[in-house]
Amino acid sequence: MEERIKGLLRRNDTKMVMCVLDGLGGLPVGERGGKTELETAATPNMDRLAREGAVGLHVPVARGITPGSGAAHLALFGYDPLRYEIGRGVLEALGLGIEMTSRNVAVRGNFSTVKYVDDKPVLVDRRAGRIPTLENRRIASGIQAAIPEVDGVKVSITSGMEHRFALVLTFDDPLPDGADAVIDTDPQSEGVSPLSPEPKTREAERVAIVLDKYVHEATALIRDEERANYMLLRGAARYPNLAGYGENYGLKAAAIAAYPMYRGVAKLVGMDVLDVAEGGAIEDEIEAMARAYEDYDFFYLHVKKTDSYGEDGDFDAKVGVIEAFDRLVPSILGLNPDILVVTGDHSTPSVMRAHSWHPVPFLLHSGLARGGGGAEFSEPGCLRGELGVFRAVEIMPLMLAHAGRLQKYGA
Amino acid sequence: MEERIKGLLRRNDTKMVMCVLDGLGGLPVGERGGKTELETAATPNMDRLAREGAVGLHVPVARGITPGSGAAHLALFGYDPLRYEIGRGVLEALGLGIEMTSRNVAVRGNFSTVKYVDDKPVLVDRRAGRIPTLENRRIASGIQAAIPEVDGVKVSITSGMEHRFALVLTFDDPLPDGADAVIDTDPQSEGVSPLSPEPKTREAERVAIVLDKYVHEATALIRDEERANYMLLRGAARYPNLAGYGENYGLKAAAIAAYPMYRGVAKLVGMDVLDVAEGGAIEDEIEAMARAYEDYDFFYLHVKKTDSYGEDGDFDAKVGVIEAFDRLVPSILGLNPDILVVTGDHSTPSVMRAHSWHPVPFLLHSGLARGGGGAEFSEPGCLRGELGVFRAVEIMPLMLAHAGRLQKYGA
Repeated sequence: MEERIKGLLRRNDTKMVMCVLDGLGGLPVGERGGKTELETAATPNMDRLAREGAVGLHVPVARGITPGSGAAHLALFGYDPLRYEIGRGVLEALGLGIEMTSRNVAVRGNFSTVKYVDDKPVLVDRRAGRIPTLENRRIASGIQAAIPEVDGVKVSITSGMEHRFALVLTFDDPLPDGADAVIDTDPQSEGVSPLSPEPKTREAERVAIVLDKYVHEATALIRDEERANYMLLRGAARYPNLAGYGENYGLKAAAIAAYPMYRGVAKLVGMDVLDVAEGGAIEDEIEAMARAYEDYDFFYLHVKKTDSYGEDGDFDAKVGVIEAFDRLVPSILGLNPDILVVTGDHSTPSVMRAHSWHPVPFLLHSGLARGGGGAEFSEPGCLRGELGVFRAVEIMPLMLAHAGRLQKYGA
Repeated sequence: MEERIKGLLRRNDTKMVMCVLDGLGGLPVGERGGKTELETAATPNMDRLAREGAVGLHVPVARGITPGSGAAHLALFGYDPLRYEIGRGVLEALGLGIEMTSRNVAVRGNFSTVKYVDDKPVLVDRRAGRIPTLENRRIASGIQAAIPEVDGVKVSITSGMEHRFALVLTFDDPLPDGADAVIDTDPQSEGVSPLSPEPKTREAERVAIVLDKYVHEATALIRDEERANYMLLRGAARYPNLAGYGENYGLKAAAIAAYPMYRGVAKLVGMDVLDVAEGGAIEDEIEAMARAYEDYDFFYLHVKKTDSYGEDGDFDAKVGVIEAFDRLVPSILGLNPDILVVTGDHSTPSVMRAHSWHPVPFLLHSGLARGGGGAEFSEPGCLRGELGVFRAVEIMPLMLAHAGRLQKYGA
């Protein structure tokens, strides 16, 4: 399908905006009159857009599948997450704001506690008692200073929260398929020895050797730490080389996101990342879009807090973020986009305090929508919409079609 | 899926009728009270069928994809248009009523105007000033008489409207995959030289050589014409060898269509084409069906004008055709078909004056429909129907199932 779309592209001057309210979908809660967060929120602006536009519910990956943020965003961007995977290591590194290319392999790491039995490490605590982030930073910077490279391969360790870190290897050339197929050294249980980073394919031998030497050198260095005296690695992954928005859709695209991971996924599909403050407000994001409005065809604008409050189980706070976004909708409409989409990447019902598999409310505002289905922007409203329940990877073709950017298929 | 269906077939004496109102789906128009053509049309007969039967909206190819007529009809007939493509050349030839087999390659042609610079042709007008059809016929018949074959391959040129024509090569044997992979000689711009019909694969070498020689001989012949002094070719395509309705569904099927292209696509899937006058009325089509009613299991009846008026942007005339068809529904019901389907191949909203990607109203009347969804046959009525929004390739399995022609799948 992706190849077909590429063959049908037609360029024009339309502007498209995709607003992603992270974790937008919810579940009804009895104490709130059996309503979801989105149903509860007063959203007069989006309700009007829903009446005028096309609404439906999208399934991020497949029915019953709860997506991570990376997979869910790939789907929104039109890349089937069942076909393209972003490895855990890459996602961790993107979340820490690390820049990568196809010459990089990224790995997730944990500092951990071992005791030595006959000079063999045995895991006591896989998370090193969740050491404070500052302790992590002290240890990691010591390692970085001592081991900047292994066998001529640049190695960079970056602290995350508590015991977590990301390790990024930089090779001289892009890595072949399979080069990241290295087993996790984390045995996922305590009382046993960590594993060696064995290669699963011949192509992975080089990466395995570098990681093995690095673990030996680094753990020798931190052997006398009280808690973080060892490190475990998992999720080694190449930085994927995806055809971007320019090649796939003929679109110059910009991302506006206040959190690093979303900026990273957008970069992965060839978007330029606009400058907004880390953790910045929605208003700031819209202003950044307005400033760059003439320079791009497509804007992806990410709102994080709907998901954060969903994961906190805070129904009211999630409602509040939705309402705050709705109040800002007129300033987006003021830019006069030809196509405006508002949706989520997945559901994060506050009663579940977690991502879920439930279909996600979707609204597409355009002069060419048939409309007339949903009376309001909500889960039940979207269920009655003209788009029905559909796969998230169909969103980009729909946006391109409504923008007049797709030619007829077949004679 | 196609193979599965074949394995489940069960024969019986049911009769099925599929009425295709070309381009049936529409978009609401503000000046018409926000209603579509189908919503506006008074359709008491179809509304009753919708209440009694199963309704829904079908997506011809995929969401956001606007299908051409060939691709859309393949989908209605149960052939996934993403898997089976009818090449441009074949569709052009079918539209001119040319009979073909898997020994044929068809190419679309334009007469064009060139000037010679250092004896090299340079395009001045790709369409030869849209010469009158009669001038086209005079020139084409001259070429046909002079060049009936090249290298033992029969070549036949057939005039279309204005500057257009179809070229059909007849080989002694069916052509292998890739034999039609020849580049277009039409460079799509003026002021440059036409291209040579180079082969893109080794299998295409033979076709490329025949076309190249033909272009040389034919353009030498018409070099002194005032306007049509050259020819451009594009869309070379093999006549696809599809398993037909008999093999795939165990159905003896007949097509009733007043326009050649639709007769051609029906023939492609093994239907017999019943005799109706070119451009004939819907009444004549129904009469042709009635005369042959005992001889077939399945009837495809095509109504063209809904699409034509949609493409003309004539909302009222499209409404008029829908109403005219509705008045004839009782005469179809008089034949007492076990399954009656009324749908379109795609949408052609008159506000867009073009085919579109919007889902298409669909109604299946049968004693086994669950029903109870839509109160009327319209886009919003179908949206509330029992079938939801579904892919057009699922229509044939649905018809077969309601006809009791499909056994249980699996134990």
